Amino acid sequence: MTLALQPSEHDALPALVEEIVGSYHADPRTRHIGAGKLANRSTIIEIVGLLRELIFPGYFGKQSLASGTIGYHVGKLVTDINDRLLEQVHHVLRHEALRTGTELPAAESQARQIVQEFLGAIPRLRAILATDVQAAYEGDPAAAGPDEIIFSYPGFFATSIFRMAHELYVRDVPLIPRIMTEYAHSLTGIDIHPGATIDEHFFIDHGTGVVIGETATIGKRVKIYQGVTLGALSTRGGQHLRGVKRHPTLEDEVTVYAGASILGGQTVIGQGVVIASNVFVTQSVPPGTRVTVKNPELQYRNRKPQEFKQELPLDWVI
Amino acid sequence: MTLALQPSEHDALPALVEEIVGSYHADPRTRHIGAGKLANRSTIIEIVGLLRELIFPGYFGKQSLASGTIGYHVGKLVTDINDRLLEQVHHVLRHEALRTGTELPAAESQARQIVQEFLGAIPRLRAILATDVQAAYEGDPAAAGPDEIIFSYPGFFATSIFRMAHELYVRDVPLIPRIMTEYAHSLTGIDIHPGATIDEHFFIDHGTGVVIGETATIGKRVKIYQGVTLGALSTRGGQHLRGVKRHPTLEDEVTVYAGASILGGQTVIGQGVVIASNVFVTQSVPPGTRVTVKNPELQYRNRKPQEFKQELPLDWVI
Amino acid sequence: MTLALQPSEHDALPALVEEIVGSYHADPRTRHIGAGKLANRSTIIEIVGLLRELIFPGYFGKQSLASGTIGYHVGKLVTDINDRLLEQVHHVLRHEALRTGTELPAAESQARQIVQEFLGAIPRLRAILATDVQAAYEGDPAAAGPDEIIFSYPGFFATSIFRMAHELYVRDVPLIPRIMTEYAHSLTGIDIHPGATIDEHFFIDHGTGVVIGETATIGKRVKIYQGVTLGALSTRGGQHLRGVKRHPTLEDEVTVYAGASILGGQTVIGQGVVIASNVFVTQSVPPGTRVTVKNPELQYRNRKPQEFKQELPLDWVI
Repeated sequence: MTLALQPSEHDALPALVEEIVGSYHADPRTRHIGAGKLANRSTIIEIVGLLRELIFPGYFGKQSLASGTIGYHVGKLVTDINDRLLEQVHHVLRHEALRTGTELPAAESQARQIVQEFLGAIPRLRAILATDVQAAYEGDPAAAGPDEIIFSYPGFFATSIFRMAHELYVRDVPLIPRIMTEYAHSLTGIDIHPGATIDEHFFIDHGTGVVIGETATIGKRVKIYQGVTLGALSTRGGQHLRGVKRHPTLEDEVTVYAGASILGGQTVIGQGVVIASNVFVTQSVPPGTRVTVKNPELQYRNRKPQEFKQELPLDWVI
Repeated sequence: MTLALQPSEHDALPALVEEIVGSYHADPRTRHIGAGKLANRSTIIEIVGLLRELIFPGYFGKQSLASGTIGYHVGKLVTDINDRLLEQVHHVLRHEALRTGTELPAAESQARQIVQEFLGAIPRLRAILATDVQAAYEGDPAAAGPDEIIFSYPGFFATSIFRMAHELYVRDVPLIPRIMTEYAHSLTGIDIHPGATIDEHFFIDHGTGVVIGETATIGKRVKIYQGVTLGALSTRGGQHLRGVKRHPTLEDEVTVYAGASILGGQTVIGQGVVIASNVFVTQSVPPGTRVTVKNPELQYRNRKPQEFKQELPLDWVI
Repeated sequence: MTLALQPSEHDALPALVEEIVGSYHADPRTRHIGAGKLANRSTIIEIVGLLRELIFPGYFGKQSLASGTIGYHVGKLVTDINDRLLEQVHHVLRHEALRTGTELPAAESQARQIVQEFLGAIPRLRAILATDVQAAYEGDPAAAGPDEIIFSYPGFFATSIFRMAHELYVRDVPLIPRIMTEYAHSLTGIDIHPGATIDEHFFIDHGTGVVIGETATIGKRVKIYQGVTLGALSTRGGQHLRGVKRHPTLEDEVTVYAGASILGGQTVIGQGVVIASNVFVTQSVPPGTRVTVKNPELQYRNRKPQEFKQELPLDWVI
């Protein structure tokens, strides 16, 4: 059954539409009208999908790739990515110039330059992502092989998207890097700011709840578990803290177990350090140290018989 | 290669189909047959998308909106939302009446009334959401501007969907509000029950793992970080606790840092209180207080040489 | 405006394509070329959708099902699921044989056998999932009825997908079970390894951040909250620990509150045990025990007037 609008309701609509349009004019913070094109989130997510096809050939997108003809497939992918990314980068550069009132006469040529450099970085991204697959395989007894990692490991997915986004972030592309990493965040619960610096052989296991802040620095062969925060000590300064190093540095071969928090821009976790579950660190730790907490003493008591009583089954209401 | 069914397998299918259909009759809890239309999750998610277009014009959906013709665009959106939402609300009201055996002769006119009120609330929703954008911008040094917040901040996304869902919840619409907030939960890891009461300038940073219960009350300018629970002390009473205030009250200007839990319906966190990371609170806190825990003492020991030994690289299996 | 490629850029593309193709040959870990079809993630997610339609008739997919004609609908669904799943299982069995260098002359007949057994398990899956709906309804005061649970509860969604995936896991199907459970993980933040063993009346509330490891065993009427880990004590052994029981056992009627961690393959949590929030357990607990931690003492101090000072409102930049 379709419920058609009654005449009386139609009468009410124009006034409502007018009121909503009026509210657009009243508050500039939540509208984007007459101000040039912005980034398109869906297109950016499509670009991420094409990049995954390009970086992991045969796993995503077209299957049954043959060595002899792979060049045609790659050529098509690279052209598609180039065209779409160029358009998006151009939009955000122009919009950023408008927003901040700076001059940007060369938005188009700047966009071309950035996208060309980005595509040129693909072989390097492939090489470092292969080390991340290796790290996941060595670090997780449940990993059946590289296929499973590339197909289904959320930590590897988030790391892949981060590495792409970071290449745009370091080239001062606004908006797009964060849209990319928040896309990964929404699918994995892993929140890596595109500004973070992360070296090779990086592995996040399980990953839900991980937060890695904008100015964090992470060395080689670092392993992180679910619920770990590499965060700031305070954000009370708000926008006045913009650009300041607020998040910690982890040197090579650091392991951080589930639920631990490491806070502060001056905090350096030395090479080979192991941080145990739920540890809360706000100061530097020298290399080769294992940091634990004395877990709070557990208290045991017997439950009373009435606590065991099953809930009476409720009448089932369908 | 396609694997066609072999004759012998086809022979097995009718018996299996009969057995599955039999299982539908055996248990009413997991089937919905011959009982009128229910809500359609996909349609509700589409409605949420249209509402985001309406509330944040130019950011989602059609771009390049011009001031002169924006009224046509809004008129079309409002009509679309009205028609689809009306149908869904009508379905769930009728179904709820059937389910609970109450009389509901006026489901259709009631649905019309609800949807009209809901659409009438859009300008108010826009106004309060603009304060949420402002709160995110002021509260996060990494925020580059309002565009980035509207496009990509999960806390703002979850808050937006919550505010829509809450308008339906307070009008006693079954099912739909929770489908909306669980859609946001699935994309952000932020679980806000549509029954919660949340005032203006609300900001959730990072957000994964946040839980805000049905009867929680939150004042103005409150800021919450990832992993915070505003929960119930116990749910052992099960359905007998339905409707009782089980979740805490946060007054204005409260900040709750990552991983803290505040539990209980009688717990009131006074104005301007700061709750530090990992604090576990089950009692009221007076205004203007900073609550911390003495973090458990860390234990440092040097790792032994053999613990440093790199894992031997495993043979790589492709 | 479309930005077309300039001739000079076109000139640069062939060299880039060649370099990328070269990188495919250099590293076998992140490419899958000329090696037979693998699993297709999108198809597997479609299969999960069809299975949800089959298991919860009238809730997902086609609505308005009538008792008289339901057999036709089920017949069509079962055939569709059979065909698609058969193809996917065949691919992964053949690929696994290639990967590990074992003989698998009968991949096709083995795939047929597995899929037939899997479909035969559907009535049993329906029966156990009905107990999970019941457990959610009894355990959550906010649950308005079974419809809301089936439509929108993330814990129930993750449990449903886990129960499907487990049926394939126990039949030694590679890759597909993990793709299924990681799909659920991405939508719910609940990470249940398909190898875990979970009995009836299982309820996960809220759920974000829950991790249940490969060799965990869970009895009847167990209830788990957000952020709970059933994990391993150490994974330093890497692939050498493969197959060893590394995750705990929970007996019947155990409740584990938010943020608790239970670790170790030798750890047995006895019948009726309640584990309070944030408890960290690495040893067995006898039946009928309530385990709590003395929560760290809270420290209260008054905030100084200057800490109350509102941030000056920043100039709003649009």
